[in-house]
Amino acid sequence: MKVRELMDTNFIVVSPDQDIVKVSMKMEKYRKFTTPVVDEEKKLVGWITSLDITRGLREGHKLVKDIMYTPKEVVSVKENDAARLAVLKASKYKVVSIPVLNDNGTVVGVIRTCDIVKTLSQLYEIKVYKIFDAMDHELKGVTWDELMEASAIVTRRETGERITAKDYEQRIKNATFGEAIWATGGLEKFFVGLIAIGELVIARKVARARK
Amino acid sequence: MKVRELMDTNFIVVSPDQDIVKVSMKMEKYRKFTTPVVDEEKKLVGWITSLDITRGLREGHKLVKDIMYTPKEVVSVKENDAARLAVLKASKYKVVSIPVLNDNGTVVGVIRTCDIVKTLSQLYEIKVYKIFDAMDHELKGVTWDELMEASAIVTRRETGERITAKDYEQRIKNATFGEAIWATGGLEKFFVGLIAIGELVIARKVARARK
Repeated sequence: MKVRELMDTNFIVVSPDQDIVKVSMKMEKYRKFTTPVVDEEKKLVGWITSLDITRGLREGHKLVKDIMYTPKEVVSVKENDAARLAVLKASKYKVVSIPVLNDNGTVVGVIRTCDIVKTLSQLYEIKVYKIFDAMDHELKGVTWDELMEASAIVTRRETGERITAKDYEQRIKNATFGEAIWATGGLEKFFVGLIAIGELVIARKVARARK
Repeated sequence: MKVRELMDTNFIVVSPDQDIVKVSMKMEKYRKFTTPVVDEEKKLVGWITSLDITRGLREGHKLVKDIMYTPKEVVSVKENDAARLAVLKASKYKVVSIPVLNDNGTVVGVIRTCDIVKTLSQLYEIKVYKIFDAMDHELKGVTWDELMEASAIVTRRETGERITAKDYEQRIKNATFGEAIWATGGLEKFFVGLIAIGELVIARKVARARK
C-alpha cells in the first residue's frame, strides 16, 4: 500500500499572507486542527496548527507567515512512499496529520491518524472464522467438522479447557483476529496454534487413508 | 487488551470556570488539541478543542463553560472497556482523542489516536521471519532448511517466480507481516500460503519416513 492510497485528498490549504482570523474560521468550519501552508503553485511553504492560531490571536499576530512552521520543521511524506512510512512517522512524532507531497514538492494530500486507525484496525477486525474457512478450503479432503474437532482437541491439550467442536465453532464465529492474538499471547503463538491444528487434521487424514 | 492499558494517564484537565486565555496557554504548552473539562471531583463535565478556543478568543468569550461541549456531545469510553471499542470509536467519529472514565464518571485517562496507531502498527511491523521461526519450532522433525525449501516450492507454484530457498529466507528476514499480507492479498491468503507450506513439509516428512 502506498501513501497515496491512504491519504485524504479532501483537505484545506492556506497561504502565508492570509489573515489568521480568516484562517481560524476556515479551520473551525472544516474541523481541522492542522493545515498545510502553500504558495500559488500549491508547493508546501509551511504548516500551522490550531494551537499556533490560539497563540497568534492572543499575541496579536496578523498573518499566517508570522506563526507558521517552516517546511524543515514539518514531518512530510511522498505520495509514492510506502504507507507504512507514514504510519511509522505518525507514531514516532505523535502528529495528527502529515502533508503528502509529489516529486515537485506540491501538496497532493494529507495523511490523518484517524484514517490510519481505520485502515490498521481492519486487520484486527477480521473474523477468525474467515481464517478457518480459508484453511478448510486449502486442506483438501478435510471436512469443516474434522477441522473443528481438531481445533477443540488442540485447545483442550494447550489450555486444559473442556471445549467441544461446537463450542469452538461458536467461539471463532464471534472472535476477531485482534481478540484471538490477544487471547493466545501474540501473533506467533496464534499461528503456532493454527499450525498445530493443521498438523493434527493432516495426521488424522493420513491415518484414515491407511485404514 | 483493555482501554486502561492503552490510555495516556499523563493528560491535562481544565475547569468550566477557567479563563479561556489561560486555558489556551496551557493547551499550547502541553501541545494538546483537546482536553477534558472536569469539576472538583474530576468528573467529566465537558470537552474543549483548540478550535473552540480560536472561536472563543475571536468572539470574545471569557470562560471555558461558554464554549465547551457538554458530556452528552462527547465520545467517551470506560477504563474497563475493550481497547477495541476505543479504536472503533476513534475510527468512526474521526476524533484525535477520547476521554476515559471510571465507573463514577471520573476522568482517569485519555485515549489518543497517535497511541492507537503505535499499538496497532506493532502487529504489522512483526517480521515474517518470526512467524516462520515459530512454525519451525512447532513442526517437530522438520529442519529450517526443509521449511525454506518447501516455502520456495510453494511460492514458485503459486506465482511462477523463480525463487530459491536462500532467496526466500532473505525475503522473510526483511519483510514485515504488514508487507506480507499486502503482497499476498490479505490475511486469509497469507495464512493459506503458510498452510500450503505446512502441508508440503509434512508430506515430505511422511515420504521420507516411508523410505
